[in-house]
Amino acid sequence: MKNPLNAEIISVGTELLLGNITNTDARDISVSLSELGINVFYHTVVGDNPERLTKAVNIARGRADIIITTGGLGPTCDDLTKQVLAGAFGLEMVFHEELAEEMKRYFKEIIGTDNITENNFQQAYLPSGCTVFHNEWGTAPGCAFVSGGVRVIMLPGPPRECNAMFQACAMPYLRALSDEVILSHSLMIVGSGESAVEAKLRDMMNELTNPTLAPYAKEGEVMLRVTAKAETGEEAERMTRPVIAKVKEILGDIIYGTDVTSLEQVVFELLKGKKMTLSTAESCTGGFIAKRITDLRGSSEVFCGGAVTYSTESKTAVLGIPADYIAKYGVISAEVASQMAKHARTLFNSSIAVATTGLAGPDGDGINPLGTVFVALATENEVFVTRLSSGLGRARVRNFASNCALDMVRRYLTGLSVVVEYHRK
Amino acid sequence: MKNPLNAEIISVGTELLLGNITNTDARDISVSLSELGINVFYHTVVGDNPERLTKAVNIARGRADIIITTGGLGPTCDDLTKQVLAGAFGLEMVFHEELAEEMKRYFKEIIGTDNITENNFQQAYLPSGCTVFHNEWGTAPGCAFVSGGVRVIMLPGPPRECNAMFQACAMPYLRALSDEVILSHSLMIVGSGESAVEAKLRDMMNELTNPTLAPYAKEGEVMLRVTAKAETGEEAERMTRPVIAKVKEILGDIIYGTDVTSLEQVVFELLKGKKMTLSTAESCTGGFIAKRITDLRGSSEVFCGGAVTYSTESKTAVLGIPADYIAKYGVISAEVASQMAKHARTLFNSSIAVATTGLAGPDGDGINPLGTVFVALATENEVFVTRLSSGLGRARVRNFASNCALDMVRRYLTGLSVVVEYHRK
Repeated sequence: MKNPLNAEIISVGTELLLGNITNTDARDISVSLSELGINVFYHTVVGDNPERLTKAVNIARGRADIIITTGGLGPTCDDLTKQVLAGAFGLEMVFHEELAEEMKRYFKEIIGTDNITENNFQQAYLPSGCTVFHNEWGTAPGCAFVSGGVRVIMLPGPPRECNAMFQACAMPYLRALSDEVILSHSLMIVGSGESAVEAKLRDMMNELTNPTLAPYAKEGEVMLRVTAKAETGEEAERMTRPVIAKVKEILGDIIYGTDVTSLEQVVFELLKGKKMTLSTAESCTGGFIAKRITDLRGSSEVFCGGAVTYSTESKTAVLGIPADYIAKYGVISAEVASQMAKHARTLFNSSIAVATTGLAGPDGDGINPLGTVFVALATENEVFVTRLSSGLGRARVRNFASNCALDMVRRYLTGLSVVVEYHRK
Repeated sequence: MKNPLNAEIISVGTELLLGNITNTDARDISVSLSELGINVFYHTVVGDNPERLTKAVNIARGRADIIITTGGLGPTCDDLTKQVLAGAFGLEMVFHEELAEEMKRYFKEIIGTDNITENNFQQAYLPSGCTVFHNEWGTAPGCAFVSGGVRVIMLPGPPRECNAMFQACAMPYLRALSDEVILSHSLMIVGSGESAVEAKLRDMMNELTNPTLAPYAKEGEVMLRVTAKAETGEEAERMTRPVIAKVKEILGDIIYGTDVTSLEQVVFELLKGKKMTLSTAESCTGGFIAKRITDLRGSSEVFCGGAVTYSTESKTAVLGIPADYIAKYGVISAEVASQMAKHARTLFNSSIAVATTGLAGPDGDGINPLGTVFVALATENEVFVTRLSSGLGRARVRNFASNCALDMVRRYLTGLSVVVEYHRK
C-alpha cells in the first residue's frame, strides 16, 4: 500500500456529544498511530444515530485509508456501529458461533453467571469476511475488514477495552501494512514561553521537513518535538540526532530533559541517583511542590516532607524563624525565603530544601508587585535565592513558582548555575 | 431562528491528532451547549492545515447552524483558524487597534514586559464585521460572525481560556438566539460513585422530561444536573425546585452543595462564615489538601498552614508525635492519624485540623491493604477518625482521601455526623 497511510478515528456515542465523557480513546489511538507512522488527519465524534453515522463514514472513506471506529459495539439498542459500517460498505452480518461461546465463558468465569440476556448475542454478529478481534477485556468483539481500498477497524468504546484491544489486535494488524518507521523525541523546557522558544527556532523549524520540529505549549512549560520518518528505526534515530544537538546548542540548559514525563520526575531521578533527599517550606505555593513530588511513585525515597507555612506566625511556630527577623525584612523577601529553606532542611533533616514566599494574588502587600515570589534553595553550605516577577493570576503564579523551585533543584544537582532569570511568555 | 439549533465543534490543532493533548474543550463546550438546549451532532478535530481545515468547515456549514472552533488563534505561524474561516466565508481580515492596545496592556501588566514580538499582533486581526470576544485570560481574542445563515464562534484552544471565554462571551451570545430560557442547577456529591447515585435515581431520571436530571462523573465526585426549559427564568426556576427537593430527599447529606465550584470552596466558605481556621497534617496526600485549599483566593483568612510529614521521622520531628507511639500503633493507624491532627491543630494554632496517613501505593506495608487511608479531624475537644479502603491506584487514592478529609470538615461545620462510610464506585 501507499505510504504514509492516513487514518480517521470515528468515535460513536451520544454521551461524547453531551460532554458526559471525554474522548480519551481518540487520543490514545492517535498516540499509537503516530508511533506507527500513520497520519491522523481527522477525529470525528458522532452520536448513536444511524443516518449521521452513515454520513460520517461516507465522508471518512473519501479522505482516509484507514477508518477506526470506537464505541457502539455493545448489546444495547443504541449499539449500531457494526450494522451501519457493514451497510455502508455493502457487507452482510454473519453470526459467529465461536464468539457466542466465548461470551458464555466470559459471563460464567468473569461475571459469574449463566444468565445471559438475549441481546448480548447481537455482539456475535460481525461483517462477513472480517478479521475477528477477540475481546479478552469485555464482551464486545471488534474486527477489521478491507473494502474498496479502505481498511476499517472497529473497537469497543470503554477506554480499558479499547486500549487493550488496540494494542493487542489493531497494532499488529496495522504494523503489517507499512514499511516505514516514525520516531519522535520530546525536549522539555521550563522557564521560557512558547513564543520566545519559537522565535529562537523559527528559521530552523521552517527549513526542516524530515525530521520536523514543532513546539507545544504545556501548562507552564514548552515541549519541542522532533519527528523523523525512515525505513528503519535506526535510520530515524540517526536523523533526529543532529536536530536535537542543534536545538540544545540554541536553547542551552533551559531544556530540562528529553523524553521525560515531568520536571518533578527529573528532579526525583536526580535525587535518587545521588542518594539525596529534599524537603520543602512553602508559603504562596501552599503545598503544591510537595504534592507534585508525592504524585510520583517511590517519592518517599527522596522526599522527607514539607511545611506549608501559610500564615506568618506558622513561619515562626513551625520553622523557628524569629518573629522579629520576619518583621525586619518582610514576609515576602529574599531573606525570609532563605531562612525558610534553611530551617526546613534542618527540621526535616534533608540534603537540600526549597522554599517559596510570595504574592499569588489577588491581594497585594503594598510593597512588592503582585506576582512577586522569592524562591530559595538551601544546601549544606549555601543558600540560593531567585526573585520571580509574574503578575499572572493565582494559578499561574503558583505553577510558575513551583516549576522554578523544582528547576533550581535540577540546576543544582546537575552542576549548572542555580540562579537564573526565569521568563514567563 | 429555528429551534432547536444544532452545533458542530471543530477543534483545530495537530497536537490533538498526535494524541499529545485530550480534547477537553469539545467536552466542556458540549456540556454548556446542552444546557442551552442546542444539539451537538458532530465534533471534528483537524490539524493545523489550511486545506483540511477548509474542507472540515465546508462540511460543517452544510450540516450545522452554529460552528464553534477552538484553537489556532495564537501568535505562531501554525495559528490559522481565523484566516481559514474568514476565507471560507469570504470575509476580509481587519486589524483592530484597540485589541493591539489591550495586548500591550496585558503584556505590561500581567506578563510584566514592554517587549512584544511582532507576531503577537497577528492576534489583533479578525474577520470583518465580527463581534469581538475580548480575552481577559490570555492574549488571543475570539470572535463571532454570521454568514449565509451559519453562525461561527471562534475561541482560543488552551482550556482555561476557552472555558472562561465560552462562559463570558459565547454563552450570552448564544442565549440571545433563543427565546426559550434554559436553566440548570448542579448538585455536587462526594463519597459515592456515579453508578450508585444513578441506581438510586434511575426511575426518577427516566420519568423526567422537563426538567431533566442527569449525572456526570467528575474526578472522584458526581455532579447531578437538573435542567429546565421555560419561557421565563422564573418559570424554569420554579420547575427545578421540586426536582431538587426530591433528589435531596433521596440522597440526603452526601450532597455537599448546589451550584458550588468545589468542595474546598464550600469548606472555605463554612470556615469563613464561622471565623474558624484550619490546618493540615498530611502523609499519603503529600500536600494535596493544603494545595487545594490554597488554590482559593483569600484562603489565608481560614488556612494557617500544614505539615507534609511524609517520612515517619518527620511525624516526630515536626509534629512531635513520640517515636515509640508511632512504633506501637504503626504509622498507618487510626491512632497516628488522630495524633497528627491533634498536633497540627496545636502547632498551627488553628480551630480545627485534618490529617491523613495511608498507603497510596504502589508499595504496601505488609499490614494494611493497599489503598487504606486513615483520615482524622481534630477539634478543640474531640478527634474523629475514618478508615477508607480503596485499592484504586495512587492518584485516585490521594484524590479520594483529600475529598474525604475536606468532607469531614464540611460535615463537622454543618452539624452532621462526621464519621460516615465513604464509597468508591
